[in-house]
Amino acid sequence: MKPDDAYRRKIIDGKAIARALTDSIKEKVENFRLETGQIPGLAVVLVGNDPASEVYVKNKAIQTHRAGMRSFMHMLPETTAQEELLALIARLNADAAIHGILVQLPLPQHLDRNIVINAIAPHKDVDGLGEVNAGRLSLGMDGHVPCTPLGCLKLLQDTLGTLRGLHAVIIGASNLVGKPMAQLLLKQGCTVSIAHIDTKDPGGLARQADILIVAVGKAELVPSDWVKPGATVIDVGITRMDLPDGKTRLVGDVAFNDALEKAAFITPVPGGSGR
Amino acid sequence: MKPDDAYRRKIIDGKAIARALTDSIKEKVENFRLETGQIPGLAVVLVGNDPASEVYVKNKAIQTHRAGMRSFMHMLPETTAQEELLALIARLNADAAIHGILVQLPLPQHLDRNIVINAIAPHKDVDGLGEVNAGRLSLGMDGHVPCTPLGCLKLLQDTLGTLRGLHAVIIGASNLVGKPMAQLLLKQGCTVSIAHIDTKDPGGLARQADILIVAVGKAELVPSDWVKPGATVIDVGITRMDLPDGKTRLVGDVAFNDALEKAAFITPVPGGSGR
Repeated sequence: MKPDDAYRRKIIDGKAIARALTDSIKEKVENFRLETGQIPGLAVVLVGNDPASEVYVKNKAIQTHRAGMRSFMHMLPETTAQEELLALIARLNADAAIHGILVQLPLPQHLDRNIVINAIAPHKDVDGLGEVNAGRLSLGMDGHVPCTPLGCLKLLQDTLGTLRGLHAVIIGASNLVGKPMAQLLLKQGCTVSIAHIDTKDPGGLARQADILIVAVGKAELVPSDWVKPGATVIDVGITRMDLPDGKTRLVGDVAFNDALEKAAFITPVPGGSGR
Repeated sequence: MKPDDAYRRKIIDGKAIARALTDSIKEKVENFRLETGQIPGLAVVLVGNDPASEVYVKNKAIQTHRAGMRSFMHMLPETTAQEELLALIARLNADAAIHGILVQLPLPQHLDRNIVINAIAPHKDVDGLGEVNAGRLSLGMDGHVPCTPLGCLKLLQDTLGTLRGLHAVIIGASNLVGKPMAQLLLKQGCTVSIAHIDTKDPGGLARQADILIVAVGKAELVPSDWVKPGATVIDVGITRMDLPDGKTRLVGDVAFNDALEKAAFITPVPGGSGR
């Protein structure tokens, strides 16, 4: 299906929103530098050689630099001992030139993810994955919030304005996306429902959604008859699908072409929620 | 309406469940003492003279004592300075005879609740109101959990057994009850919906609930036609209502007598969820 203009207007352009966001952050960084003489610095820590993680880390460095901030990369061998990694985090915690620390996940199996993530000083835990920031989010307080749900919120607010009173249905209850997304949307005044692997009638719940967020990681899990006419659909899934001709294609958790007919707005994959 | 036996079997007897729980805790405390030589100690801190708080604090001390633990009461004047309160908490944090610390809320206005609660060492924050325990709950990790939602979960598990796959609708999104309740039920495999003041059709959502939890604090907010036949209803609200004859009566957030007809199980007020 080749979307005509009416369809095109429904598609949420995540890349354009991201570019505008980078520009506005760049301006804030510059003003901050003029006011304080300081340049924000982000340290990214990668352990091992996972190819996808290498791409993510590289992109984070580019985006950081593009926004006018300093980027520090720490790429450690797969064999790094936990004490070495914790010692590095302690140094970064104490380093006044570093304002944020990201430890790229997943970590090699011999490292304890919980211990490592919670070793980051809460005010530098810009991924918001530690206990303190998760607690602040849960309590409705200010803190660092995981990037994917925060990005989805930004897409929703850019598209819909205020979200108060809308019914948001989230499919997928992960710590990285579903649960923090629920807390962010509750804070915005949404009615929030969370469905997952044990949900008996996910379609029946999804059909009530003014906002439908799908973050499961199963290609085209959600058929168009789960989408209420006029809903806004945010698709966080991204799966590489084999095609009959031997090529591959990236697809989301939502059957995009059919859902596009019913939704008021929908994110494409790729180029939507950005994962 | 005078409930006959069929009705009586529907009423969840919170007091009986609480008595059985106290007995089982008493046994665990005794075994712990025999194994380790230690007796668990709970410190309860009250600032000021709020009459309801005085009753709560007294009841906590009695229950603690009844379960074979040591109870330490710290009753401070309304005028206590924040630094004095923080110094007391620091001493209790360092005291090996104290395993849990409760600071009774609400605090007098001149004290910063967030700072005070988060000064309690997370492993002694047995009310689970600090950021670290809220984060652990949100991330599905072990930690201390606020007592009211934990008690409601206990009532549900005692009544229904496994909760996996049931649709729980929670009305009220407070940090004390609604939000931690949602996280506890998600961890049990429930589909969870959260309604609140901004929800457009709370009745329509409530009517889908296998488990309906109401924690708003508005007398008889929920009429019986919000209750799906066969649902289990947990009423956390408690309001003192004036009667025409000048007397008063405690009522919950649910219109109990009518809801009793439709529900499979329901908590009474008082004597149910225990607030």
